[in-house]
This record gives sequence, structure tokens and C-alpha cells, in this order.
Amino acid sequence: MAALTFTLEHTDNSSKARAGTITTDHGQIATPIFMPVGTIGSVKAVTQQQLKDEIGAQIILGNTYHLYLRPTTAVIEAAGGLHRFNGWHKPILTDSGGYQVFSLAENRKLTEEGALFQSHIDGSRHLFTPENVMDIQRSIGADIVMAFDECPPYPSDYTYAKKSMDLTHRWLDRCFTRFNSTEDKYGYTQNLFPIVQGSTYEDLRVASCKYIASKEAAGNAIGGLSVGEPEAMMYDLTQRCTENLPYDKPRYLMGVGTPWNILECISLGVDMFDCVMPTRNGRNGMLFTTKGVINIRNKKWATDFSVIDDGLQCETSNYYSKAYLRHLFVADEILGLQIASIHNLAFYLWLVGEARKHITAGDFQAWKTSTIEVLKQRL
Amino acid sequence: MAALTFTLEHTDNSSKARAGTITTDHGQIATPIFMPVGTIGSVKAVTQQQLKDEIGAQIILGNTYHLYLRPTTAVIEAAGGLHRFNGWHKPILTDSGGYQVFSLAENRKLTEEGALFQSHIDGSRHLFTPENVMDIQRSIGADIVMAFDECPPYPSDYTYAKKSMDLTHRWLDRCFTRFNSTEDKYGYTQNLFPIVQGSTYEDLRVASCKYIASKEAAGNAIGGLSVGEPEAMMYDLTQRCTENLPYDKPRYLMGVGTPWNILECISLGVDMFDCVMPTRNGRNGMLFTTKGVINIRNKKWATDFSVIDDGLQCETSNYYSKAYLRHLFVADEILGLQIASIHNLAFYLWLVGEARKHITAGDFQAWKTSTIEVLKQRL
Ligand SMILES: [Zn+2]
Ligand SMILES: [Zn+2]
Repeated sequence: MAALTFTLEHTDNSSKARAGTITTDHGQIATPIFMPVGTIGSVKAVTQQQLKDEIGAQIILGNTYHLYLRPTTAVIEAAGGLHRFNGWHKPILTDSGGYQVFSLAENRKLTEEGALFQSHIDGSRHLFTPENVMDIQRSIGADIVMAFDECPPYPSDYTYAKKSMDLTHRWLDRCFTRFNSTEDKYGYTQNLFPIVQGSTYEDLRVASCKYIASKEAAGNAIGGLSVGEPEAMMYDLTQRCTENLPYDKPRYLMGVGTPWNILECISLGVDMFDCVMPTRNGRNGMLFTTKGVINIRNKKWATDFSVIDDGLQCETSNYYSKAYLRHLFVADEILGLQIASIHNLAFYLWLVGEARKHITAGDFQAWKTSTIEVLKQRL
Repeated sequence: MAALTFTLEHTDNSSKARAGTITTDHGQIATPIFMPVGTIGSVKAVTQQQLKDEIGAQIILGNTYHLYLRPTTAVIEAAGGLHRFNGWHKPILTDSGGYQVFSLAENRKLTEEGALFQSHIDGSRHLFTPENVMDIQRSIGADIVMAFDECPPYPSDYTYAKKSMDLTHRWLDRCFTRFNSTEDKYGYTQNLFPIVQGSTYEDLRVASCKYIASKEAAGNAIGGLSVGEPEAMMYDLTQRCTENLPYDKPRYLMGVGTPWNILECISLGVDMFDCVMPTRNGRNGMLFTTKGVINIRNKKWATDFSVIDDGLQCETSNYYSKAYLRHLFVADEILGLQIASIHNLAFYLWLVGEARKHITAGDFQAWKTSTIEVLKQRL
């Protein structure tokens, strides 16, 4: 079948924000979009039904590093791909595993060939290369496959950043060679997205964008941001990237971020986002709501019987009270983690959905400014 | 409003099994019934929506000891009762807290007045008496309130067992006096069930049944069983109790048990059950299915892509594969606990529903014998 397509439907006059539609063989994605992270094929504490019906997720992420180690590529292949294995039948994007190798694995060693590492689970030794990472993602059955890259730490000096970017570019060539010489594993089209690197150096970012753009991929990603640099720097670098990436292809900013990060980066022309923040912070009792940020463990919610957030359509957010959710957290009940995760993800999907509406309506900038002010409030 | 009513619809010819309907102000309960345990107002790892739609629960349990300490009676009162607090609008039964005081609390001391104890959470000192335990359960808003009793340990010598039973009976008088002199807290009828004690001594059990029966309560409970005694002894004592408790009132066997325990005790004339086994064992990866018992962590399930249990109607049991659920357990994902808990509870509700069908159809005994054989198999 054909590669995914991207149709731009509205562009904002006073910013670079745009509303579009990505069409994949597993269905359409309305952009801008937030993708919940389903590390090992499960979005933590959320069922596939809740993901679809309550959260309104349109695409989820899987982590290649985790899935390769557990349940293993062989098990996923035997199941007929991740969609069949986990029962999620909308689009799936997998990262390339590079980031986890450098943040989770032990005794990792970077060579021209790829990344040697030991599993954080059982110490077993493995080698990721651009070639086998393409094969693994084909076997997982991702609709969107990410290039194998190196994400340099923050801060990195210029020499290291350039060396790392050049390696990422050479790996990218190998990724495309392998990807283009292998077939879609399960009948539907799989699409390879390259990733811009270049650390915090504008000239490197621009050079990387040009290199990435030359691949004429179905979509392009911006990596290596939100790794500790100041927020203003992240916005500047994101802008530099969106200015230099193809206009007519979706742009994916990896691992970003807070609700306000997402709105600011939408206004810079980003179309796709992922982040563990809604689920991770949710499990810690931090809720993002349409009225501001809530620490649900706070005593002030003990007898607040209003629902979690009546600004969302999500059934869960409109069903349980703040007092009940606080009680669940204080008593360490698993149900608390579930409710907070569902709510925060529903909020993130609401956020990008609202952004899309306001891009279409032509009042995105004004809406963004007033909304960020509200969302950042500590309740 | 009026006390709950119990209508007997079918009685089995070859056993004491019966099918009936309990009508409360929060709706009807088809018996025999299993009641999921919602310790602190949450059935562990299960949402209220799943409890209703997937599991088909008709009534749940709350633990007075836990709810009294957290969120506290005052918070539940402020919410307008537990139904409003936790969003479960079908019947709720609360235990009296006596069992938890003696299994969880610290420095507990039993007197004629009641039970002194220190909270297992913060060490604070509390006194439970028959009177305040009635008041607390009224405030929680239970549809069925349990008498405050002492549950003697197994084994207990005859002298202690008799002394304990006599205390439970004196406390029962005080429970009824207090309960009958206080009003339904939230408009709907609350019903007090007395509890038979007497440890493992048949004459004490018979005496206790007669004492309990004299209260002419809307329903009666059998306590102090399944506390470590042999299974055959538990069945004998249950039979002794059902023979000596009112025929036309529901009989509730507290804290029992395995699926086969439940079927055997249904055949002895028990109508209501509760147990933490489906949720606790589920969280440990032990699944009860219509084909037998599964340890989902076992390697044999790694590539078994058949659904968890196609013998149930439950969507969750029919959606996820054994291989996926095993993967979630091996990787310590919260979603595994959720799926296993939902499935096991759906199985328990299926079990009592099937029992009811076969009582009505007139083939309960034959069905029970063949079913127990299947259910006990280790797969
Ligand atoms: Zn709006
Ligand atoms: Zn049947």
C-alpha cells in the first residue's frame, strides 16, 4: 500500500501553527496530535478500551528497546505484530531504541557499527545497528518507524555534537538502505521518519534539517530536545528546525513536554508530540486540568466533592470527585493511578484537539496565550 | 422505606441450594451472589464502570475499619455517604470492623465495652463499640450493616469459643438496641445482619444460630469460618448453620472462598459470599477460568495468543490474550493487575450466575460435580 499521507487543512495567520490529517493504513490522525507512550505495548495503568473510548487516543508509541527485550521480537512476530499482540488497532509509532540504550542499558558502547549494550533486565549482551533496528521495528509492525540515532546529552560541546550528528546522518543512510530493501511485514505500509539532531547549535540543527529533508521521508522528527536545556533554548531550536524541515510533511517533536510546551511548539509548526509526563506525573498525583495544575495529595482536596475536571468530555474526569481521588492516592490504591493516568491523557488529547479547533477557527494565538495562563495556575 | 426483602424463587431438589432475589433501595440482587470486596471504597485495580459493565457486580463490600480511618467517617458523611463518595450506586454491605481490628490493628484490647486498638496507619488510639460501629456504618451509608462481633482464631478451645460467642451475643443485643434507635442516614433503608459465631463447636454454632434467629433480622451471616480449619470441617459447620438459620432470609457466609468452596456452600443453602481471593490471587497472576486454574506467569503462556477465557461474556476476558497478559505480568505492568482482577471477578460473578441458572433448571447437583472437576484443573 502507499506511504502515509499528510494533508494540511488550516494554517494559522499569526503563527506557524497548522491543522492537518495524517492518513495511515491503520486510520487517520488529526493533527496537531499527542501520542500516549505505551512503553512495552501498554500505556501504563490504562486499558486499550479506555485509551480509545475515554482518552480518544489516535496513535500510541511503543519503545523498541523494551519490546525487543520483552516480550521479544520473536513473540511479537508470532502474534502477527504488536497491533494483534496488544489489541490496539489504530496507528503505532515505535522509537528506535537508541535513547533507551543510552539512558537504561548497562555497559553501552558506541561504535560506527552501532550500539553495544547489556540488558537492564538480565545483563544479556546485545548490539543495535541501523539495520537490525529497522528489522526489529518492521517485526513489531510499527506504522511509523523511527531512524536509529544518537541523542547527545545536554550540554555537549560543539565538537562532540558535530561528530554525533555526522554519525546519526551516516546511520540514517544505512537505515534507509535497509528499510527500502525490506518489505512491509504485515501487509500494511510502514513509514520511516528520520530524526534531526545537532544538540544546541543552530548551524548544526540547520545542517541536520537539510540532510534529513533530502531523504524526502513521509514525515520528519526533531530529536535531542527537552533533555535539560532551558525552555527558551528549546523553543529557539525547535523554531530553527521547523523552518528548515519540509512544509508539507508532518513534523514530530520527540519527548515534549508540558501542556504549555506543546502549545508553544504547535505555534512553531510542530504537528506530533509524545511524552511520559501525563502518565508519570499522574502516577505521582499531579493532575493537569482545564483550570490549572492540581496536586491531588494536598489536604485541600479532602472534602472537595466536585468532579476532577468538568472541562473535559472524558467520562472518568467527570465521574470521580477530587476528594475520592485524593483518598485513593493517600491510601495507595491502584485505582488512583488508573484514574489519574486516564484523566491526564484525556487532558493532553483535549489540549491538542482544542488547539486544532482554534487553528481552524483562526484565533489560535489569542486562545493559546489566555489558555497557557489558565493551565499553568497551581490550584 | 421498608427493610430489604428476600424472595425465594427456586429450591434445588437434591440439595439445599436456592435461587432468590434480594430487593434493596439501591436495587435488586439475584442470589446466590458473590460480592467483590472494596476495602476502602475501591475494589482494588478495578473502576466502578468495569465493576458494573464488565464484571456484572450487583453489590460490593466496604470495610468499616479501613473507611473509618481513611478517608474517615466525617469525610464520607460530608460526601453524603459512600455511594456518592465512590460513585457506586448499587447496594453496599459493610463489615463491622471487628475482623480487621484483630488482624491489622496494633495493641488491641478486648473488653466488655468493645475493642481498643491503635491504627495500623498512624498509631492513633481508637475504641470500637457495638454502638459506635452501628453509627459509623450508618454514616458510611451501607445498605447492609454487619453486627459488631468477635471472630475467635482457629483453633480456639471450647471455653474461649463459648466465652467469645456469649460476648458476641451481648454485643449483638447492643447493636440492635442502637441500630433500632437511630435513623436511616440518607433516606434509603439500612438493614442490620447479625453474625453466627461459635468457632468449630457444633453445639455452639447451633446455639448461636438460635440466638441470631431470634432477632428476626432481614438477613443472617455466618462468621468465623475459613480461618484455617480443614475444608471438610468448614462445610460441616456451614451446613449446621444453614440448617439452623431462618429459611426465608438470605444467608451470608463471610470470607468464603475458592470457586469450589462457593459451589459446595451454595449446595448447603448459602446465598451470599465475599472473598478477597479473586482480586488478591489475580494480582499474583493466578487466574480462575471456566477451563481451570492458570498461573499466567508460567512460560507456557508466552506464545498462547488465545483469549484469557472465552467461556465468559466479560469483554476484558475475551479481548486480551494469555500471551499479552503474561507479558504484562513479567514486565510488572499495572495493566496486568487490572486485567487479572477484572477477569477473576467476572469469573466469580459468572460462577454464581451459572449456579443460579442450574438451580432454576433443576440440574444443579450434576452441574456442580462436573463443573468443580473442570474448575480445579491446573492448566
Ligand atoms: Zn475551545
Ligand atoms: Zn450453564
